[in-house]
Amino acid sequence: MAQLWKKDAPIISSLLETDVYKLLMLNYIFRYYTNLRATFSFINRTDVDLLKYIDIEQLRAELAHVATLRFSEDEISYLMSWGMFQTGFPENLRNLKLEVPKVTKTADGKLSVVAGGLWSHSTLWEIYTLSIVAELYGRGKAKAEGYAETQLYDSGMGRLLAKVDFLTAHGELRGSQFALRRRFSGLWEQEMTETLLEKTNFMTGVSNVRLARDLGVEAQGTNAHELPMAAYAYARGKSNFDARNSIYQTLVDWQELNGQRALIMLSDTFGTDAFLAKLPDRFAYDWRGFRQDSGDPIAFGEKVIKFYQGYGINPAEKLIIFSDGLNMQKMLDIYSHFTGRIQVAFGIGTNLSNDFGFISPLSLVMKLCEVNGLPTVKLSDNVVKATGDADEVAVAKRIFGYETTFSEQVVY
Amino acid sequence: MAQLWKKDAPIISSLLETDVYKLLMLNYIFRYYTNLRATFSFINRTDVDLLKYIDIEQLRAELAHVATLRFSEDEISYLMSWGMFQTGFPENLRNLKLEVPKVTKTADGKLSVVAGGLWSHSTLWEIYTLSIVAELYGRGKAKAEGYAETQLYDSGMGRLLAKVDFLTAHGELRGSQFALRRRFSGLWEQEMTETLLEKTNFMTGVSNVRLARDLGVEAQGTNAHELPMAAYAYARGKSNFDARNSIYQTLVDWQELNGQRALIMLSDTFGTDAFLAKLPDRFAYDWRGFRQDSGDPIAFGEKVIKFYQGYGINPAEKLIIFSDGLNMQKMLDIYSHFTGRIQVAFGIGTNLSNDFGFISPLSLVMKLCEVNGLPTVKLSDNVVKATGDADEVAVAKRIFGYETTFSEQVVY
Repeated sequence: MAQLWKKDAPIISSLLETDVYKLLMLNYIFRYYTNLRATFSFINRTDVDLLKYIDIEQLRAELAHVATLRFSEDEISYLMSWGMFQTGFPENLRNLKLEVPKVTKTADGKLSVVAGGLWSHSTLWEIYTLSIVAELYGRGKAKAEGYAETQLYDSGMGRLLAKVDFLTAHGELRGSQFALRRRFSGLWEQEMTETLLEKTNFMTGVSNVRLARDLGVEAQGTNAHELPMAAYAYARGKSNFDARNSIYQTLVDWQELNGQRALIMLSDTFGTDAFLAKLPDRFAYDWRGFRQDSGDPIAFGEKVIKFYQGYGINPAEKLIIFSDGLNMQKMLDIYSHFTGRIQVAFGIGTNLSNDFGFISPLSLVMKLCEVNGLPTVKLSDNVVKATGDADEVAVAKRIFGYETTFSEQVVY
Repeated sequence: MAQLWKKDAPIISSLLETDVYKLLMLNYIFRYYTNLRATFSFINRTDVDLLKYIDIEQLRAELAHVATLRFSEDEISYLMSWGMFQTGFPENLRNLKLEVPKVTKTADGKLSVVAGGLWSHSTLWEIYTLSIVAELYGRGKAKAEGYAETQLYDSGMGRLLAKVDFLTAHGELRGSQFALRRRFSGLWEQEMTETLLEKTNFMTGVSNVRLARDLGVEAQGTNAHELPMAAYAYARGKSNFDARNSIYQTLVDWQELNGQRALIMLSDTFGTDAFLAKLPDRFAYDWRGFRQDSGDPIAFGEKVIKFYQGYGINPAEKLIIFSDGLNMQKMLDIYSHFTGRIQVAFGIGTNLSNDFGFISPLSLVMKLCEVNGLPTVKLSDNVVKATGDADEVAVAKRIFGYETTFSEQVVY
């Protein structure tokens, strides 16, 4: 069909058009942070003037449409069929009425999108907002530069087929696509996914719940930095002692809720070294493995292998999911390095869903910036990726004894 | 001497002029809630127009003087000699620089005193503010009504000596004076205490730390509603589940800090029935007893006796400290009812330190009203004593299944 954009249809037409980990986290939030108020703010990490390409009224209309959506009974039944959600989850989903985020042009002309209210509401806006902004930007940029839809499609498909060849040649690579948030468009995400499913053995699942359902594949995801970030900020409003330990309480709660499933530790929020330094032993035994999302993936994997060996646990029983700005060659390098020593899987996103050559994907994020009025902070294993107020970053570095110096520019 | 008021000297001249439980709670706050921000607000529960009797500038000057005070090394050594405080407590006390509360006349002409900032600071203002306001009110009222100092003194001493006779006749009564906050004056509190120490065997200790040190008696106190109120409000900003359980976490933390000492449960913050309903068993065994501060003292004691019997614990090993608006006859009635069945002690305040006949003590309080921007609430065992926003009170009643109907007007 060579089509990239739906004409006269909203970009998001179902609340399932979100990453599965958002719904797993929603289940956690409903249980442990029912009353927490949390604000997500859209941040454009680039110098690109988005409002040159995006009509702010169109963005508002797309977001307003999302706010009219409800989880349908079919969708709720589908989710409950996984056996992952609490008994009260359907009722919570039925009661969910999202409020439209505030979209403004700041004094210095930048696009601002802020979603406040209960965490259980604002968390959902991250994916809807990012995917809408990314798609509107792609359309606007194509128009401004005079790229025709078929021209872009052909370019994207050419690049995708080269990846198909690569993945066919390296059938040992396995992973999930975490491609929703920075996809070029919804239609392209679907076509790309269908193509890979049809032509390769790479894909074990997709993060996009709507797509997983429509294509009959597994919805795959873990959990995000927002969990330890919220736990830390809330706890730091009590004491630094609680703040230091909050990241482990998140694990306790998550395991209590999820049993044997989705037990993947995201260790880099305040630095993996600090995370491992005081990690209670039980998590080494109970959890399936780690997700690597910043820093040097090889150094990370070696650290994790050593960590398990320190417990007499065979690392080959455990898993690392790599998800930090991957492409084909990076996946192969990582896989080749670790094969046979520890299980390796990939969550690859933007390189699959927004790689057209003519138009580059942007580093756009929508971040949790405060909970109950308390500022959040993230350090990560890459000093460039630290977020939050400078004073709060300094305090967090002290609390966690953060000494990481690894620095690498973020592409997207 | 027949003197009630110090001339040309500040009302508070040492930071030890506070209830001992404030310092025990300060130790707890430094450890568990170092970063919590908390606001205390002065509330005049009566219709008396305080500003008719109190010069607002004089009040500001008295409070400003308190803010100039520091814990001296002598005072810190005295406190540390008890063996009750953490190793970091002296340094925390040395670093403590209080900020003067905001004193204003509200639009409707009422006196407002608000102390904000860190909980470890604002908590201390309760006692300093109340004792200053009470003393300034007494002076102003006496002046307005034309009562001479000696006339008041004689009246107060006459009433005190009648109490001496009563306590001599009932030598079995034992208690502490919790009389600082609503005392008529500092001089009177001291004279009253010396009189009782000299002429009776009643007094086992005093809550006023400065007085305890100066008179060489034990500083006695337990803990206050602000602990579960703060824990609840903070936890409710997370979930109602955490809010319900927060009151027990306070006990865990308190015991961890205090070992075998000061283990007296204050059960009425959200209703004693709700408190006992889910109280973990360990507290029945580990803690020394309860403090009764609202509702019907006889019904309370019977409930506590039954509670201990339910564990096969002999109530005679346990203690109830009664502290709710006591006078001589009330103490005798309570003692007579429970003697031999459970240990009974008293914390008697205003009836000893502000009973002059000509001038009545006022029901003045300074209450914790919010923490980290989250509203506090108290229910108590007397529906009249509930405090907080009406919606929040309703939510708390649901969370705790509060069904108390006991109602009794508060005298002071």
